[in-house]
Amino acid sequence: MYLRIDKIAVDFPEPKGPSPDSAAALQELLGGKFGEMSTLMNYTFQSLNFRGKSKARPYYDLIANIAAEELSHIETITYAINLMLTGATKRGTDPATAPLKTAVDARNTYHFIASGQTALPVDSMGNPWTGMNVFSSGNLKLDLIHNFFLECGARANKIRVYEMVDDPAARAAVGYLLVRGGVHIVAYAKALEELTGADMSKLFPIPDISNKKFPEARKLEEQGLHQIMFRFSPSDYTEMGKIWKGTHPEDGSTLRVEDTIPEGFDPPELAEEPQLTAPGIDPEMIAAAAKRVLG
Amino acid sequence: MYLRIDKIAVDFPEPKGPSPDSAAALQELLGGKFGEMSTLMNYTFQSLNFRGKSKARPYYDLIANIAAEELSHIETITYAINLMLTGATKRGTDPATAPLKTAVDARNTYHFIASGQTALPVDSMGNPWTGMNVFSSGNLKLDLIHNFFLECGARANKIRVYEMVDDPAARAAVGYLLVRGGVHIVAYAKALEELTGADMSKLFPIPDISNKKFPEARKLEEQGLHQIMFRFSPSDYTEMGKIWKGTHPEDGSTLRVEDTIPEGFDPPELAEEPQLTAPGIDPEMIAAAAKRVLG
Amino acid sequence: MYLRIDKIAVDFPEPKGPSPDSAAALQELLGGKFGEMSTLMNYTFQSLNFRGKSKARPYYDLIANIAAEELSHIETITYAINLMLTGATKRGTDPATAPLKTAVDARNTYHFIASGQTALPVDSMGNPWTGMNVFSSGNLKLDLIHNFFLECGARANKIRVYEMVDDPAARAAVGYLLVRGGVHIVAYAKALEELTGADMSKLFPIPDISNKKFPEARKLEEQGLHQIMFRFSPSDYTEMGKIWKGTHPEDGSTLRVEDTIPEGFDPPELAEEPQLTAPGIDPEMIAAAAKRVLG
Amino acid sequence: MYLRIDKIAVDFPEPKGPSPDSAAALQELLGGKFGEMSTLMNYTFQSLNFRGKSKARPYYDLIANIAAEELSHIETITYAINLMLTGATKRGTDPATAPLKTAVDARNTYHFIASGQTALPVDSMGNPWTGMNVFSSGNLKLDLIHNFFLECGARANKIRVYEMVDDPAARAAVGYLLVRGGVHIVAYAKALEELTGADMSKLFPIPDISNKKFPEARKLEEQGLHQIMFRFSPSDYTEMGKIWKGTHPEDGSTLRVEDTIPEGFDPPELAEEPQLTAPGIDPEMIAAAAKRVLG
Amino acid sequence: MYLRIDKIAVDFPEPKGPSPDSAAALQELLGGKFGEMSTLMNYTFQSLNFRGKSKARPYYDLIANIAAEELSHIETITYAINLMLTGATKRGTDPATAPLKTAVDARNTYHFIASGQTALPVDSMGNPWTGMNVFSSGNLKLDLIHNFFLECGARANKIRVYEMVDDPAARAAVGYLLVRGGVHIVAYAKALEELTGADMSKLFPIPDISNKKFPEARKLEEQGLHQIMFRFSPSDYTEMGKIWKGTHPEDGSTLRVEDTIPEGFDPPELAEEPQLTAPGIDPEMIAAAAKRVLG
Amino acid sequence: MYLRIDKIAVDFPEPKGPSPDSAAALQELLGGKFGEMSTLMNYTFQSLNFRGKSKARPYYDLIANIAAEELSHIETITYAINLMLTGATKRGTDPATAPLKTAVDARNTYHFIASGQTALPVDSMGNPWTGMNVFSSGNLKLDLIHNFFLECGARANKIRVYEMVDDPAARAAVGYLLVRGGVHIVAYAKALEELTGADMSKLFPIPDISNKKFPEARKLEEQGLHQIMFRFSPSDYTEMGKIWKGTHPEDGSTLRVEDTIPEGFDPPELAEEPQLTAPGIDPEMIAAAAKRVLG
Repeated sequence: MYLRIDKIAVDFPEPKGPSPDSAAALQELLGGKFGEMSTLMNYTFQSLNFRGKSKARPYYDLIANIAAEELSHIETITYAINLMLTGATKRGTDPATAPLKTAVDARNTYHFIASGQTALPVDSMGNPWTGMNVFSSGNLKLDLIHNFFLECGARANKIRVYEMVDDPAARAAVGYLLVRGGVHIVAYAKALEELTGADMSKLFPIPDISNKKFPEARKLEEQGLHQIMFRFSPSDYTEMGKIWKGTHPEDGSTLRVEDTIPEGFDPPELAEEPQLTAPGIDPEMIAAAAKRVLG
Repeated sequence: MYLRIDKIAVDFPEPKGPSPDSAAALQELLGGKFGEMSTLMNYTFQSLNFRGKSKARPYYDLIANIAAEELSHIETITYAINLMLTGATKRGTDPATAPLKTAVDARNTYHFIASGQTALPVDSMGNPWTGMNVFSSGNLKLDLIHNFFLECGARANKIRVYEMVDDPAARAAVGYLLVRGGVHIVAYAKALEELTGADMSKLFPIPDISNKKFPEARKLEEQGLHQIMFRFSPSDYTEMGKIWKGTHPEDGSTLRVEDTIPEGFDPPELAEEPQLTAPGIDPEMIAAAAKRVLG
Repeated sequence: MYLRIDKIAVDFPEPKGPSPDSAAALQELLGGKFGEMSTLMNYTFQSLNFRGKSKARPYYDLIANIAAEELSHIETITYAINLMLTGATKRGTDPATAPLKTAVDARNTYHFIASGQTALPVDSMGNPWTGMNVFSSGNLKLDLIHNFFLECGARANKIRVYEMVDDPAARAAVGYLLVRGGVHIVAYAKALEELTGADMSKLFPIPDISNKKFPEARKLEEQGLHQIMFRFSPSDYTEMGKIWKGTHPEDGSTLRVEDTIPEGFDPPELAEEPQLTAPGIDPEMIAAAAKRVLG
Repeated sequence: MYLRIDKIAVDFPEPKGPSPDSAAALQELLGGKFGEMSTLMNYTFQSLNFRGKSKARPYYDLIANIAAEELSHIETITYAINLMLTGATKRGTDPATAPLKTAVDARNTYHFIASGQTALPVDSMGNPWTGMNVFSSGNLKLDLIHNFFLECGARANKIRVYEMVDDPAARAAVGYLLVRGGVHIVAYAKALEELTGADMSKLFPIPDISNKKFPEARKLEEQGLHQIMFRFSPSDYTEMGKIWKGTHPEDGSTLRVEDTIPEGFDPPELAEEPQLTAPGIDPEMIAAAAKRVLG
Repeated sequence: MYLRIDKIAVDFPEPKGPSPDSAAALQELLGGKFGEMSTLMNYTFQSLNFRGKSKARPYYDLIANIAAEELSHIETITYAINLMLTGATKRGTDPATAPLKTAVDARNTYHFIASGQTALPVDSMGNPWTGMNVFSSGNLKLDLIHNFFLECGARANKIRVYEMVDDPAARAAVGYLLVRGGVHIVAYAKALEELTGADMSKLFPIPDISNKKFPEARKLEEQGLHQIMFRFSPSDYTEMGKIWKGTHPEDGSTLRVEDTIPEGFDPPELAEEPQLTAPGIDPEMIAAAAKRVLG
Repeated sequence: MYLRIDKIAVDFPEPKGPSPDSAAALQELLGGKFGEMSTLMNYTFQSLNFRGKSKARPYYDLIANIAAEELSHIETITYAINLMLTGATKRGTDPATAPLKTAVDARNTYHFIASGQTALPVDSMGNPWTGMNVFSSGNLKLDLIHNFFLECGARANKIRVYEMVDDPAARAAVGYLLVRGGVHIVAYAKALEELTGADMSKLFPIPDISNKKFPEARKLEEQGLHQIMFRFSPSDYTEMGKIWKGTHPEDGSTLRVEDTIPEGFDPPELAEEPQLTAPGIDPEMIAAAAKRVLG
């Protein structure tokens, strides 16, 4: 079971302005093969499908806990997309003026037809996320190798989307995800090392560029965010520290588990888009509804 | 952000025995168009995409909170599938004896090839869940109508899968989901009534059969489980009681919000399946790993 | 069985000019999840799959008849797309001049490669229509709720595509479909009301904007087109008037069945596009063919 | 525009009994790549997309008219599937008895979960029909070659499904479709011959087996059904006789256009399946509904 | 089994410059329904699935040999795409400068996120190639008709993509493929003629435009490249000359088998794209790697 | 460019008998996410997309050469499937006897409808192979990690399918592929070690079971087949020996490049299946065709 907290992981700066095509690109990090939907669902299913858990508790705890963190990454990238789309068309209530005219040329028309200028579980080409993206073989070593690869692939995607978009709000999200995704790469490498004795540290960084080259990520790493495994649970998953320990393969800093989650930030209020009837609540209706709702 | 608790919602009885084809059927309730992946992802995205939230907080709170509950439904149905698959082939480590021979005739061969006799985000025909199943128009009224329909369709699916499988473990899960899914149908109907003044109560039940006809569900409803909206949050989503109130459209009982989550149960330990190298940890390796892990 | 008549439902005004990206957007109304392919196929299959028909003839008649009307909606939106694409590239027969050069930047390249600048059963992102869009549970109440939701979703799509394109030919089609789709929303609401006694009228309009705000639709509603259920059959489906009766939930006007179909208009002649060898019949070949064909 | 008539093309004999796996196989002829959905949609779009129609009227008329006939083929195969599924599970209203238990092993579980033991637009493996199956290049010669190939592929599918199922009701449908599909193969071959002067007659039959080997088809061909192109229109598509003429390439009989459609037969009443709440109308509800509906 | 030779079929001229949207269009010829992936895989599977081979050796040899040639067509079109993408973004190693900024508007964002500005097995809309594109019925006549149609459809696609892109490197590839694909159309027509005695020559060209209208193709045909079937094997597939013989249906020139493959050209060296870490080998790493690799 | 040789890699023993459901399971190794289509296409595209090749020739040579070997693996698994399907239905030419009756219950009905009892590029559930299975990031290190993971996943699939089927012909193929796939796992591990200095040898075997446990594989490894990298080229890809060298991580044996390909075996003649008109060549037709073909 899960508890939800109405906070998100990133304190978004004001966006420079709407950018529907940046939003379309960011979708790759949400609904792409290597997007947050994939990391979330891979680890969630691997944790629920874990056989022989009692013999391998630290591995179970690690995977289950990272799965919980991924939920907050879904939130992070979704809000980044939504901020790029808010205000992207002409606000108003007269359809005859073609308020969505510019959307005809947008890279992702679903943003304007299927959703109210908000995110969907699709990738940068508008192709939907699919359950075929989940790998859960039941073999612990193979699942860990998969997860290590998945996170490296996800990192490559983040790097490239970062290089495509330069809005500060979008980059705040991607920079944060680079750091936290980096933690997950290291975590799965450590797990493989503990399980087999192999030394995977010389493989880092994958791809061949350091997080320090990304200003938003560098700032967070200077605060040590890449060293911490937060425990996303009131009282469970306590054995992952048997894996998440020692030093970071890239900068040699010391890894540590933190028994709380980050404090978080209030999610941004997304402005109404009346031309999309989103949410479609007009003042009188609100009054009437309030009367009914509030008694 | 989310906190994960290492408990699940259902106290599974001992299964009568493995039943791979029942597991395949149960997949519809996990990865089908109307499965728990769909309810989870619809409400999660609708909550993150909510525009004008401050004007319509009770609706936001309701959708966000139900999304959080759906995470536990993913767990419930996944464990039901896993229990039907555990022990379904001949345990052992000699591949030459064809320990998976019976799997050739199984309805879902992915259970034996792609996973270690465990669940995957696919439906009863093995087709993967897809992001096209998510509806998030941004128009509150339309999203609520969608959710109402989605839950009704999900109920029809649960009823039919219940009628296909008779293992007590599977039915414990489906019976529980019938009750809790029933809560969500009522919740979206109430939300539409609050928003518009329409009276949707005469539509119930959809389809035309009462939960009371399902022994496992009836028992839970006798305990009042269909009257409660649990608040899946330490301190947020407090306004949903402005919608979840009044009486139940089917039996007239009083609806109430409970400010905690159900206590839950320890998830079952899933036995190892050595013929699938799941998890593939042999005794010596465990010893060596333990030495490394535990120091 | 069906009879086809070489007329279409809309009298298209002259388009302002080709607009491939508008054509791409219009595709959502043809091959999208909520496009005319979906409404057509849902009602067609529901009518063929109807169990216990003799006990529920008015519902059968209503669904079967609306299915027949949807065939004309396929025609309407297809011609709208085709008119937006006709003339969209440089006419001529010399490939070396790159007559399709501008198509490289078009939103839907299938229009220029797979088809001869004409419609295909795909959506606004070029993703194909799929049979997964058909819902046919066999439970009458649930199918009607689905259909009600489907038509509301389709209306949201039409509204938004209308707001994206401003060519008069495209808007003539979308305006017409808004009105006729509106009839179908009301029809399914009425059917649910007759079946259950629920009152769904306060839900209208969904989304929260009236057809009267769309000039092309308003004009048609002023002529009463939103009040009429045409009987698309020489002599069958006569009992739907038991459902389609009473008043319109939005303007209170009186609903009526008309025992004929609209008169219709000659479909536009689509000009040849020689650079696409569409249709690829050169004068001499026509002469030779004519000689053979006409003897 | 289209008129629908509440008749179907085949007079179904009583089925030998339900056969869910035969139904699953028959789905290939409905929703498969070469199923009736494909022939219907290919010709429908080609007729609506036809460029330079006035120069090539006989070809337009032929394609448009065959498209209209295909609608009745959808009906034919759908009813065949429905007859194979009716009565396939235990009738009753008590879910606890697992009335759908046998469906766990059925080839197509969608028949029992998504539909009420009726057809869906999917193929014999449960994969949905997709718009990618539509070919509409705009080049008349190429479209005709496609159609010729498509019908040959469809014939191969019909032959093989015929060889898989031996229920008389199923075979009545497939035998009929073999004959009428055979007409379409010849029609597209004739169209190519008229257009180019090529002689395609020596290619017949494709695959290398005559319709006369199929008792149900032979009987219909003895009545000359393979020689007739019915005109599925009250007054349009009158020029196709310029193509559909001469002799049949296989038996040399004379081809002719008939200016009416076949008389047709009442579609079978599909019995209720209460365990699926299909249609879910109980006696009292019917009474109440009747009172409301009939006044 | 196969031998690979590090040569490609086309001597690429210097491209005029990068053109990502041309690359996106060219993808249709690689991963589209009628792209080289489709021709390759159709003939490969048909050759491996051939029943009764000893009775029909020339047909087997023809199909198997064309399959082998198609491998070189995959190479050709892939390099054409890669040349259009090389240099398409700002080279450099500082992600903060948003070196991929222009990619936000590119037609195919996978080129910049999933790949290192190189080809992928997707079509011009970014939809992946699928195994559903393979037809292998086992009936020789039907497979040949399919192949004839497939090559004609592929030709239409090549013609249209040629008309969309005017870069000399892209056109060198498409012109070459027009000629060699033309050989395959004739080959399958000849095979059908040999098998059945039908005369298909009057159908040519399909679509209705000659290769001679394409300067790059015309030049190659003037050298006779359209008359030659190369034998892509050291010593096998020797009987295809029993089919590939006689005259070309379009220009009457004499067809002949050549018992070698074309000499070929060195594939272009694709420049590094450091902003994509492609290949991500920095000088020091190369030195260290060289030391390790070269000892 | 490629040369094809009419030999295959495995000398198939006589199958015990047809086994359609074993064939269906084997499809996973052909068209599944981890099947031979995936390995073939991943390495083919990576080799064609290789940037900065001159700096990293040994890596290019290794990937390009393995790609070439994968073509022979497609052949191997396809023939294994075909052997399991040959004779699986009642041979004969009278469709009325329902010769394909047993196919109604087969796991993969495409084998009997779409193909002539032969392989298709689909997986064990009949879902088609898709281009989304190709990973080609352009970053050499990441591509190698992917390939290492892909081969490990492929190995898990082979192990499990081996455990499902016990026909000697099927196991001959899977045993062979286990050995050769094992070579590829080691090759990509070696490449990563050369590139980065990491030591991956302790990860082996993945999953945790040795090839020696599989009799057919053990026999081949006793002959040293796991130590050899064959050069699938007359004269190219000569630098891969700079990577493929040293010792095998599992048994310490010495690795070596062999400058030829394996000798190979004649592919089995697949018997005709007249009930499927595969190939559909009757004696008289053969005579007539021979007369035409042979002159």
